[in-house]
Amino acid sequence: MILMPRVSGKSGDPVLIALGDAIRRARADREISQEALADAAGIDRSHMGKIERGERNVTVLNVKRVAGALNLPIATLFERAGV
Amino acid sequence: MILMPRVSGKSGDPVLIALGDAIRRARADREISQEALADAAGIDRSHMGKIERGERNVTVLNVKRVAGALNLPIATLFERAGV
Repeated sequence: MILMPRVSGKSGDPVLIALGDAIRRARADREISQEALADAAGIDRSHMGKIERGERNVTVLNVKRVAGALNLPIATLFERAGV
Repeated sequence: MILMPRVSGKSGDPVLIALGDAIRRARADREISQEALADAAGIDRSHMGKIERGERNVTVLNVKRVAGALNLPIATLFERAGV
């Protein structure tokens, strides 16, 4: 029996991965840390990491918080994600 | 004591209301019923109604399913919502 890591929240969906990448790129452009973005968005730091890695099926209100902290419209994050 | 209706899922957030309106408009343009859209998206019919009314903090994967059923990019739904 091979034990696979269990990851909840639909990890690996291409839309979630692309959105996480778009968030990470926008954050890197602003030269702020993942922790600082999490704090600015009011999101738990470990949850923020999982969002950037596409490991969580994030809600629209959490995308709103992240977009707000990045000073970007929500639509722009999805456009940049190409989805 | 005045009894107020209890609504879970962050009802009334302007982003959720605007997104729900954009979904409803796109559906009306296609002249399909809310039930048909729910079925095409693989989403419970009562949940679909709550999404259109902005009564649910919908997840990105459910927005993806709705956008796919409407044959629209996710970004376009948020653009049309103005958020």
